Amino acid sequence: MSTMPTEGRATADAGLRERAVRVIPGGMYGHLDAAPLPQKFPQFFSRGEGCRVWDADGNELIDFMCSWGPILLGHKHPEVEAAAARQAAAGDVLNGPTKDMVELAELLVDQVTHADWAMFAKNGTDATSLGVLIARAATGHRRVLVARGSYHGIADWSARVGAPGMTPESHLNTVFFEYNDLASVEAAVAQAGADDVAAIVLTPIRHDVYRDLEPAQTEFAHGVRAICDRIGAALLLDDIRCGLRLDLRGSWEVHGVRPDLSAWSKSLANGHALAALLGADALREGARSVIATGSFWFASAPMAAALATIDALKAMDGIELMRVSGERFQEGLARSAQSHGLSVTVSGPPQMPFLSFEGDSDFSRASVWAGECAQRGVYLHPFHNWFLNTAHDTAAIDEALERVDGAFGAIRERYGTD
Amino acid sequence: MSTMPTEGRATADAGLRERAVRVIPGGMYGHLDAAPLPQKFPQFFSRGEGCRVWDADGNELIDFMCSWGPILLGHKHPEVEAAAARQAAAGDVLNGPTKDMVELAELLVDQVTHADWAMFAKNGTDATSLGVLIARAATGHRRVLVARGSYHGIADWSARVGAPGMTPESHLNTVFFEYNDLASVEAAVAQAGADDVAAIVLTPIRHDVYRDLEPAQTEFAHGVRAICDRIGAALLLDDIRCGLRLDLRGSWEVHGVRPDLSAWSKSLANGHALAALLGADALREGARSVIATGSFWFASAPMAAALATIDALKAMDGIELMRVSGERFQEGLARSAQSHGLSVTVSGPPQMPFLSFEGDSDFSRASVWAGECAQRGVYLHPFHNWFLNTAHDTAAIDEALERVDGAFGAIRERYGTD
Repeated sequence: MSTMPTEGRATADAGLRERAVRVIPGGMYGHLDAAPLPQKFPQFFSRGEGCRVWDADGNELIDFMCSWGPILLGHKHPEVEAAAARQAAAGDVLNGPTKDMVELAELLVDQVTHADWAMFAKNGTDATSLGVLIARAATGHRRVLVARGSYHGIADWSARVGAPGMTPESHLNTVFFEYNDLASVEAAVAQAGADDVAAIVLTPIRHDVYRDLEPAQTEFAHGVRAICDRIGAALLLDDIRCGLRLDLRGSWEVHGVRPDLSAWSKSLANGHALAALLGADALREGARSVIATGSFWFASAPMAAALATIDALKAMDGIELMRVSGERFQEGLARSAQSHGLSVTVSGPPQMPFLSFEGDSDFSRASVWAGECAQRGVYLHPFHNWFLNTAHDTAAIDEALERVDGAFGAIRERYGTD
Repeated sequence: MSTMPTEGRATADAGLRERAVRVIPGGMYGHLDAAPLPQKFPQFFSRGEGCRVWDADGNELIDFMCSWGPILLGHKHPEVEAAAARQAAAGDVLNGPTKDMVELAELLVDQVTHADWAMFAKNGTDATSLGVLIARAATGHRRVLVARGSYHGIADWSARVGAPGMTPESHLNTVFFEYNDLASVEAAVAQAGADDVAAIVLTPIRHDVYRDLEPAQTEFAHGVRAICDRIGAALLLDDIRCGLRLDLRGSWEVHGVRPDLSAWSKSLANGHALAALLGADALREGARSVIATGSFWFASAPMAAALATIDALKAMDGIELMRVSGERFQEGLARSAQSHGLSVTVSGPPQMPFLSFEGDSDFSRASVWAGECAQRGVYLHPFHNWFLNTAHDTAAIDEALERVDGAFGAIRERYGTD
């Protein structure tokens, strides 16, 4: 078991949790709420650097969540931070954008194969919802088809059916299908009305919570593209989690399938708040017609950060770096688990790995394991995919594997071998 | 007429507009789109400092839009920027918030009289929509009542009925009433069903586009509060535009009326992207129950900026500063117009002034005037309220008035006196 003193770790964090519960409903909310995680997970952090973060008590953790995606080049990447600071020193939120907005739009249009234009916002939800709005404006259709269990943000159309605050009307225009099941897409089209589908929304891979990750089948991707073409619906690829980690050209380029719209956010500016919707020319007039805006959407510092992020990623061939490190991590995890006699499934593209325990259908064993990892200085998640960043070098991966090996040992001690 | 060379001004801006139109639908979108404004308005900016901004061609303008609200203490306020940079140098977007989130929630709960808790997001739309979501979760009711013409963001429930991309279902649960007309609120309640109203949403003053600004009648504010109490609906005050400019305690404290929920954004962090929803204890469980989250919602640098913004605002009694400067500006505008024989209405609280020309129902004269102001180095808007910031000192106001006087002269030359 762990030799790190839990008491010492808990002090500042516990104090902040106690204060937070008074002034924040439930003490915290959303994906950063540590309440569903083992106690060993810190709720509050103090800093980050490269592939490491430090919690509020100063404990260092090798970070495999990367702030749930945004950190692509490591925390506080010097060139990105310098670019953002340079622009902030001139002006960030002004009465209009700076030239950075045009340059970033040009860069993305040049880089992402399907894209002829770009619009920018702040949240992932902004980008996916803007895509739906534009698809509706362009097609005159109402319905949106989404895969059951896929996460596309917190807007009503994409929120969980029946979740608190939803009304019976919230999903009137949302129809569900099963990921990687073309027949179910056809059934959803029939249910929606073939002449009333505005968009089919898909993540590039299946990365739902509480599941092993699953690639999109090439045949499925092509099939959805063909359906969209047949019924005059827009294919909206939600690249918010995968964008810039799998393929600079867009995450379905590997299948030879180009969406009409793609939504980007998270890693776009290495942690600076930014989202983008990219679109094809056929959707340009629809995009031009809609009302969409936000107080900080045109902020220049995040756009300068995005330009620097993409430049740096390209210069170092960052996707390949993450792939190699991720593969080393995945192989090491599998080996380590096996050496303890534990049956696990390691899934996901190497840049976005995940691990589950055999027969652990409620992910309780994964939770205990992730807590043991956190206590040993490795931050990863029991039921949501992880993320690599380019600062995960061989030494960091090996150090993480060594720490994780102790966590596997704790699981074997607690549950025995399979 | 102006003596500034339009050609010189146009060069960089025109070049950027030309590039933008290729990679951004329509060349720009949203509230920062300069297309509906006279050509003399620049689309692109390069920097800001205090109460001044510089366009992409280096022309200096005294800024009365303050980035449409966010800039409260002047562009690049040293203490705010230092606080944000200090936090960014440690970590901004991490795997959890830093202590800044707790401190900011504590500060807001302490300062805003109705508030017992706080949640944070990025956009104004996030905050108003989160308020509606929580009101629905807490009351179990569906409908939302909003004043016709009021802007509460771009989510479907609050978007313009029939705007491109809206469906017939978008406003099924939205019912409209007239601002400052209690009988129309009662009628809307009856239409919605008295037992099915989740929230009544109101701005603290009527600040719709294409209208003179209009204060809320105290009787109206109390009446809406009483209706909400009677039917078990939440009163949601949309303080996104007015917040921190009129009253630190919340903008309806002057009426002695406390909402159940209030939405804040824009000026909260002097230009750093942040939004907040504040709520009363009665809504705490509802708030706890909903699913609401965003990749950058827990970012610490904007929270550090917000703490510094509110500290600085209090230390300088910034609201009073803006009131005094705004009053000087309003009085000067009225005097200047009169001296040219022009009939105008100056409206709004001094911190958020506005001016319209008599009989100018399509705001065409206001547009020409605003263009003449822009050409002379004063940035204000023909059909949307303006904003003061605390960097507008007497000298800047007087300089602006002198420039604006020339614009009134141009209007007199073009249209004659009334």
